[in-house]
Amino acid sequence: TMSPVNSQVIITEVAPRDGLQSEVQWVPSEIKQHFIHLLQEAGVPEIECTSFVSPKWVPQMADNQQLWLGIHKKPGVSYLALVPNVQGLHLAIESKVEEVVVFGSVSEAFSLKNINCTIDQSIDKFSKIVALAQLHNIRVRGILSCTLGCPYEGPIEARQVVKVAEKMKAIGINRLGLADTIGVGTPNAVITLLDQIATIYPVHSLSAHFHDTYGQALVNIYACLQAGVRRFDSSVSGLGGCPYAKGATGNVATEELVYMLHGLGYHTGINLEKLIMAGDFMRNYLKNTNNSRVALAYLAKRS
Amino acid sequence: TMSPVNSQVIITEVAPRDGLQSEVQWVPSEIKQHFIHLLQEAGVPEIECTSFVSPKWVPQMADNQQLWLGIHKKPGVSYLALVPNVQGLHLAIESKVEEVVVFGSVSEAFSLKNINCTIDQSIDKFSKIVALAQLHNIRVRGILSCTLGCPYEGPIEARQVVKVAEKMKAIGINRLGLADTIGVGTPNAVITLLDQIATIYPVHSLSAHFHDTYGQALVNIYACLQAGVRRFDSSVSGLGGCPYAKGATGNVATEELVYMLHGLGYHTGINLEKLIMAGDFMRNYLKNTNNSRVALAYLAKRS
Repeated sequence: TMSPVNSQVIITEVAPRDGLQSEVQWVPSEIKQHFIHLLQEAGVPEIECTSFVSPKWVPQMADNQQLWLGIHKKPGVSYLALVPNVQGLHLAIESKVEEVVVFGSVSEAFSLKNINCTIDQSIDKFSKIVALAQLHNIRVRGILSCTLGCPYEGPIEARQVVKVAEKMKAIGINRLGLADTIGVGTPNAVITLLDQIATIYPVHSLSAHFHDTYGQALVNIYACLQAGVRRFDSSVSGLGGCPYAKGATGNVATEELVYMLHGLGYHTGINLEKLIMAGDFMRNYLKNTNNSRVALAYLAKRS
Repeated sequence: TMSPVNSQVIITEVAPRDGLQSEVQWVPSEIKQHFIHLLQEAGVPEIECTSFVSPKWVPQMADNQQLWLGIHKKPGVSYLALVPNVQGLHLAIESKVEEVVVFGSVSEAFSLKNINCTIDQSIDKFSKIVALAQLHNIRVRGILSCTLGCPYEGPIEARQVVKVAEKMKAIGINRLGLADTIGVGTPNAVITLLDQIATIYPVHSLSAHFHDTYGQALVNIYACLQAGVRRFDSSVSGLGGCPYAKGATGNVATEELVYMLHGLGYHTGINLEKLIMAGDFMRNYLKNTNNSRVALAYLAKRS
């Protein structure tokens, strides 16, 4: 039997930002807002809503300020926005964002190709973001991509993740997300990584972000749970593909995660049926396939 | 570090039988045989090839005897056939089958609807099969369906599984497979079941058969591995749908299982790339979607 604190798992729903950003077809702000409202009504405690990034880089996020203002915020829910740089943070400040996410990488090649700077340059950028955010009482959460493998460099060693994590910690980032961006990890690698990172980021300050490209996301999350991690990113209906292999699966579906967590006796505060319907709403709008097996089974049985 | 014995996992590939039996379009024997040959070339140690069942019930298996004779058996590989009754065993004996599978259920409702008899009647049938099989030096393996839930009865308690397992053991079935036929289980339920069954069937005599309907198959297999189970059924490319919810996922894909096992340091004897190509061959023939995420990622990267 678990203690009440230990049985609580916090899910950060990333579909509105991470899930939608790779969608080519434009999704109007009202649709995104309705989607976010359905998610919060389903009991999702944290929602990554948009990115304060240049529309030149991510056209789907061009409506960030307008979108943010139109969200009917629900008390108790955390709304997150990604900021790639200080300019983005200024926009976030204007929009009264309370918590931002900075997105780095532990792979030099991935950093150069995806955020157009070296790892050290990205840390430098993040440190400016942290400094300005602190002045405005805005919390900053860090995410590191490619922590179990890189599409360009291949396998990544845990000590490389530790090296970059130390730098993130040194600039004042107290909550870190570890992402398996290409979904190549398996549980033993996950456990090794968590073991080595624990001296810098204690387990309660960590979150994990898994992709289901090789079907390993849920088993990796289970390994994280056994190691004490209680915070996970996921995307309803598995929204968001894999940009490194067209047709392959991207983010783990929130439905699968919630199904497992509830089966294991964890509390998420989420109503699975309402969650499925939120994903179904966006998939119907986009007219593409739902990547959640839980949703497919539920919707098939209902029809 | 694992001992050599403990690091060995035996996969029973069920696609040619369990995977194909629900396919409506007829697959000619030569295609099935080529599929089986590709699987054995990929290093699969055990293959469930067909069912000696009346073609009235399962038209896809109507070629069982002809199919069996046309398989170029590879030394070291076990070839399995399902037999529903003594008549089926007679056909299997004629075909020189060395190991058969009997398929029962722990749910009374499922037993009645799917094998047209009560649980006790099925045990009685199996005992006749075991007696005749022993005379012919044929090994008999048992599978129990619905061990974590039933499409008609809902949740199934572990003690109900134990009750039926005791009967299977009493009639001389020394190897038992536990199936989550509708894929509803999560790891704690799996661990509870394994704990309770251990007094009747020690862990080395057990195998597990998971469906991925709710995306939980791999995490359940991981829980089984942690409990000492080293034998699993799976289906290449996830062949075989879910007859209880059209459009939902059925058997766990062998590719996902092998990917995880190799990542964890287990030995399977299987070449993942050749395995993917075997699944791809059958999916191309059937002209339907590959349900393995590993295969989708691999084939997407290759193209």
